[in-house]
Amino acid sequence: MKWHVHSERELYRDRWVDLRCADVELDDGRRLDHRFINVQAGAGAVVLNDHDEVLLIWRHRFITNAWNYEIPMGAIEPAEAPIAAAARETEEETGWRPGPLRFLMYDEPMNGLLNTCNHIYLAETADHIGSPSEGFESDHVAWVPLAKLPDLIRDRQIVGGTTIAALLMAAREHGV
Amino acid sequence: MKWHVHSERELYRDRWVDLRCADVELDDGRRLDHRFINVQAGAGAVVLNDHDEVLLIWRHRFITNAWNYEIPMGAIEPAEAPIAAAARETEEETGWRPGPLRFLMYDEPMNGLLNTCNHIYLAETADHIGSPSEGFESDHVAWVPLAKLPDLIRDRQIVGGTTIAALLMAAREHGV
Repeated sequence: MKWHVHSERELYRDRWVDLRCADVELDDGRRLDHRFINVQAGAGAVVLNDHDEVLLIWRHRFITNAWNYEIPMGAIEPAEAPIAAAARETEEETGWRPGPLRFLMYDEPMNGLLNTCNHIYLAETADHIGSPSEGFESDHVAWVPLAKLPDLIRDRQIVGGTTIAALLMAAREHGV
Repeated sequence: MKWHVHSERELYRDRWVDLRCADVELDDGRRLDHRFINVQAGAGAVVLNDHDEVLLIWRHRFITNAWNYEIPMGAIEPAEAPIAAAARETEEETGWRPGPLRFLMYDEPMNGLLNTCNHIYLAETADHIGSPSEGFESDHVAWVPLAKLPDLIRDRQIVGGTTIAALLMAAREHGV
């Protein structure tokens, strides 16, 4: 059954958060007041090299108090193409400029609450440009062997849902 | 660098949403007012049968206007063990009771905004109990061949980040 939205209203809004409530009708006629949050779409990249390694950022996420490896990813700017955002975020967050990017995966990390989605791309080469310009985001950048991914996921050193999904997609395509 | 939280304040709270703001200090001394949302932890299950098929729910997500296949998953109740929540959610949402569950994957679907996490388990058998008791959540339940997963992800019939990650983890472990 498709949930039918009758109307929406704002619950809380500031520069960073747009929290709303939808009056939703289900197939059986039941009505719900369902909260949701408007969040910008994101783009990111799984960047490989020719040693079967992937470019990851090691950073702290205070909200879950987790140190973890993540693929570079961030919000798509107005009028920016997702593929351009993926390249830009990679360069800003890692200091590496990805080679040619091709589409890898689309996901919706939390479509029961947030209307955001992520467009993730794959590159198989990269050039080192310099230090990350958005360096506060990360503790360090590393080339991590794809073969280590299962252990890192098991050991909770990789926890981001989209990062896990994208890395497994890339490893599968790459035959690792 | 570990982001240090000095204090928090409530921005908006109701029965469903707990939106807060943290005064965060970065390593270089910069301070940010960083929003975050408290969301209950979730649990879910990848349930397989002996035909290399996985139990999925086909449902509509109004927030992203997406029809998609998802693994059964939901919020862990107070004092409930994650593994018990995974079994309960599976039974309620699909009408199938999973066989013995073992841990598959932990993820944080959106740790830049939400403090939620998911505990996903794997079962290799299930018994049909009846109709889903939480049937409004889904349009129908289906046993989907693991071999079809890449096409379904590519065609955006599977979009949930945690669902994609969990299915790829299970397929990898299952040798498919």
